[in-house]
Amino acid sequence: MKFQTMREAVCSVNRELFVSGLARFTFGNASGADREAGVAVIKPSGMSYDDMGPAEMVAVSLASGKRVDGRARPSSDTATHLALYQSFPGIYGVVHTHSRYATVFAQAMKSIPCVGTTHADTFHGAVPVTRMLTLSEVQEEYEANTGRVIAELFEKESLDPATLPGVLVAGHGPFAWGRSVGEALEHALILEEVARLAYCTLALRPDQKPLPHYLMDKHFLRKHGADAYYGQQEPDEKPPRQS
Amino acid sequence: MKFQTMREAVCSVNRELFVSGLARFTFGNASGADREAGVAVIKPSGMSYDDMGPAEMVAVSLASGKRVDGRARPSSDTATHLALYQSFPGIYGVVHTHSRYATVFAQAMKSIPCVGTTHADTFHGAVPVTRMLTLSEVQEEYEANTGRVIAELFEKESLDPATLPGVLVAGHGPFAWGRSVGEALEHALILEEVARLAYCTLALRPDQKPLPHYLMDKHFLRKHGADAYYGQQEPDEKPPRQS
Amino acid sequence: MKFQTMREAVCSVNRELFVSGLARFTFGNASGADREAGVAVIKPSGMSYDDMGPAEMVAVSLASGKRVDGRARPSSDTATHLALYQSFPGIYGVVHTHSRYATVFAQAMKSIPCVGTTHADTFHGAVPVTRMLTLSEVQEEYEANTGRVIAELFEKESLDPATLPGVLVAGHGPFAWGRSVGEALEHALILEEVARLAYCTLALRPDQKPLPHYLMDKHFLRKHGADAYYGQQEPDEKPPRQS
Amino acid sequence: MKFQTMREAVCSVNRELFVSGLARFTFGNASGADREAGVAVIKPSGMSYDDMGPAEMVAVSLASGKRVDGRARPSSDTATHLALYQSFPGIYGVVHTHSRYATVFAQAMKSIPCVGTTHADTFHGAVPVTRMLTLSEVQEEYEANTGRVIAELFEKESLDPATLPGVLVAGHGPFAWGRSVGEALEHALILEEVARLAYCTLALRPDQKPLPHYLMDKHFLRKHGADAYYGQQEPDEKPPRQS
Repeated sequence: MKFQTMREAVCSVNRELFVSGLARFTFGNASGADREAGVAVIKPSGMSYDDMGPAEMVAVSLASGKRVDGRARPSSDTATHLALYQSFPGIYGVVHTHSRYATVFAQAMKSIPCVGTTHADTFHGAVPVTRMLTLSEVQEEYEANTGRVIAELFEKESLDPATLPGVLVAGHGPFAWGRSVGEALEHALILEEVARLAYCTLALRPDQKPLPHYLMDKHFLRKHGADAYYGQQEPDEKPPRQS
Repeated sequence: MKFQTMREAVCSVNRELFVSGLARFTFGNASGADREAGVAVIKPSGMSYDDMGPAEMVAVSLASGKRVDGRARPSSDTATHLALYQSFPGIYGVVHTHSRYATVFAQAMKSIPCVGTTHADTFHGAVPVTRMLTLSEVQEEYEANTGRVIAELFEKESLDPATLPGVLVAGHGPFAWGRSVGEALEHALILEEVARLAYCTLALRPDQKPLPHYLMDKHFLRKHGADAYYGQQEPDEKPPRQS
Repeated sequence: MKFQTMREAVCSVNRELFVSGLARFTFGNASGADREAGVAVIKPSGMSYDDMGPAEMVAVSLASGKRVDGRARPSSDTATHLALYQSFPGIYGVVHTHSRYATVFAQAMKSIPCVGTTHADTFHGAVPVTRMLTLSEVQEEYEANTGRVIAELFEKESLDPATLPGVLVAGHGPFAWGRSVGEALEHALILEEVARLAYCTLALRPDQKPLPHYLMDKHFLRKHGADAYYGQQEPDEKPPRQS
Repeated sequence: MKFQTMREAVCSVNRELFVSGLARFTFGNASGADREAGVAVIKPSGMSYDDMGPAEMVAVSLASGKRVDGRARPSSDTATHLALYQSFPGIYGVVHTHSRYATVFAQAMKSIPCVGTTHADTFHGAVPVTRMLTLSEVQEEYEANTGRVIAELFEKESLDPATLPGVLVAGHGPFAWGRSVGEALEHALILEEVARLAYCTLALRPDQKPLPHYLMDKHFLRKHGADAYYGQQEPDEKPPRQS
């Protein structure tokens, strides 16, 4: 069986979606991309997290979406993952969930404002929400269009997927990504936590303003900038994570 | 002992009500119907979930409600279950709980609006709330009248129990159903989750509108329509689930 | 050592306060009364739930509050428990916690309205909140006065501790009681659950009215009235529970 | 390896931050001070709670912040801890978390009002929130300035760190302290609980007033005053806890 390492990483993250509570029932899926091989490996559609092993993961072509390896039908959201890999060349993992508070912001069609340093440590600004898809976008190629609407938003608002590794799809839920499927999971987990904090903050003070820019920058950059001083490694020791 | 398979399925779902947190204390009950045999099998009244095995389940006549098999007194809500089986011929399982957020909508006498695709994947429209029972409906045949008021609502609003497999009873709590007691449980679990998401969505944006109809239809039909493409089976392979 | 059976029951409920999450840290205490022997057995003050066995429980005189048996100092809330036993002769167990939602109503100085049948199944009407204690009531015999203010409320409003087995002390938290320490625990657990349901109901609909009286009566009486038909025993088989 | 006892206590509290849910991911850190030796022992930066043993803790000079013992890079928040030890000579342990409800108050830039006795038992008055740091305070010595802004607040408002063992940093999260790292943890846990209770209380009654002063004093002093009568020891038996 091909892509064994990627299958294991993707399967492990899909299980973790369930164990962590980010995804209930079968409401979530994760994929990883092997850009050299031109494939993405993704969860099979509607399969319970208990029934899945690495062998059940499905490999599809990054370009065409055709199944390349594996017997199961890939996640019904596969075309969204592929559209994201096509639009954002720097990402190697995508996670989609219906995690509670991120989904609540998506349903309320509000972006998650950056009202605290917990948010700024990982997301360099508000996590935005897409526009609602049109009738024709839903009726034809719904899942691919979901990915295209995300890419359209990042383009239109000049947002950088490297410093803003997540988004809310209006009326639906969050997508997060990263330099590996493991990092995409980490971003999905933190997205849920900051959504919950923002939800309660707005309940306590509905007109709460975002952090001042200088504080937002400080927190993001002390972890991710060229002179980052958070963690145990020098910034130039940090390899791009790919699985 | 008769109806052994049904007893096991019903007992297992009743225990799962407790384990999953949908029912606390003894506040919940599940039943399954064997329409050929003309019986429903249901939880005994007020019995702790720890004390129950399949043998404690009670079989009652679908037509008369009389006990057909088993020593225990059936759930005090039995007549509600029977009224539902009589009014909705396509259902084979019923679950009643006081699960938190569904109960909150029932207590606030508000239907759960379809504000997200998590909802639309399972419930094709808002989950409605019944009217309050009248004095005489409460004093005489309270439990049967609870079921009748549900049926009245579905009839009056031309709702389809097959695509809307749940309801809220005003001031009381949710009932869910399905083509088996297992599917009724699945619907009760998802009902609680979508109630929680809707509760928070309305807190964040009190005037949130429901999803556009074309998106609601898309999500429901990609899972349940004639051309469903979610999951691992072709639509025509999916048998009606009966236990 | 005397009162061994009562010690075991009281110790077990005190541990359960912690395990169930009703009491965090050392914020909760339970007692049971042996009215024939004229004593109450209660948790020691400030002791962690892990360190306690039946031998650590303290027996005090119901009349004078003096320690009758046991080495530890009794709970600092002992005088409140004793005032309740003195004012409500039908009760044999008292539980005090700072459980979250009941405490929230106590802090907001609002009674918990009966907005659903979950509430009506156990509490026959709103769970009331006391007035705030005065300066002198706090400075002298604070704990005994806390109990007296509860009794004053029940007397003034003609409330029956047998059908309303709990109360909120303004700015402090809930007390619940019953015909045994075990039943007091059950009432404390249900009180927390109905407080949580009411909290969310009022958030969703701030002007929600209580249930109509005929529905409140129906639910309370089908479980507790002379013609109760909930559970597995005939009403006249139900003994008063004493431990 | 030096400071072994302190290393063990600090490591154990850092793990407990994670196990208790106060700190998710790597968002939290605890330190203990050995004032005679002139050092603080603190968590290494960005290290997962699973990977840490006592040997990974880092000892730094209380005066200069220079690493005295240990190979890892100390927590990026070390300078905040040191500023607190320098400003508050009576404290021997500091805990920083992003615990949910305390962080929500910090993000909303509201102090936590003392609306109940659960709060008054540990914090003698509202838990205050600092001002937002200025641009230059963030750009130069951000972490040390975070500690200085806390000290400035306590000085300006004449607050006593011994009776108010915690604070909220605006837009960031809570810090708590105590006479040992273990006591700092206890205060951080209780701070989160009282923040949660206050959050819900303000949701239920937005204009809720604080407790009357005589009740606040009573609760704080019955546990901590010269004549304290809570717990199993006489007040003069209670040693200052140092680890």
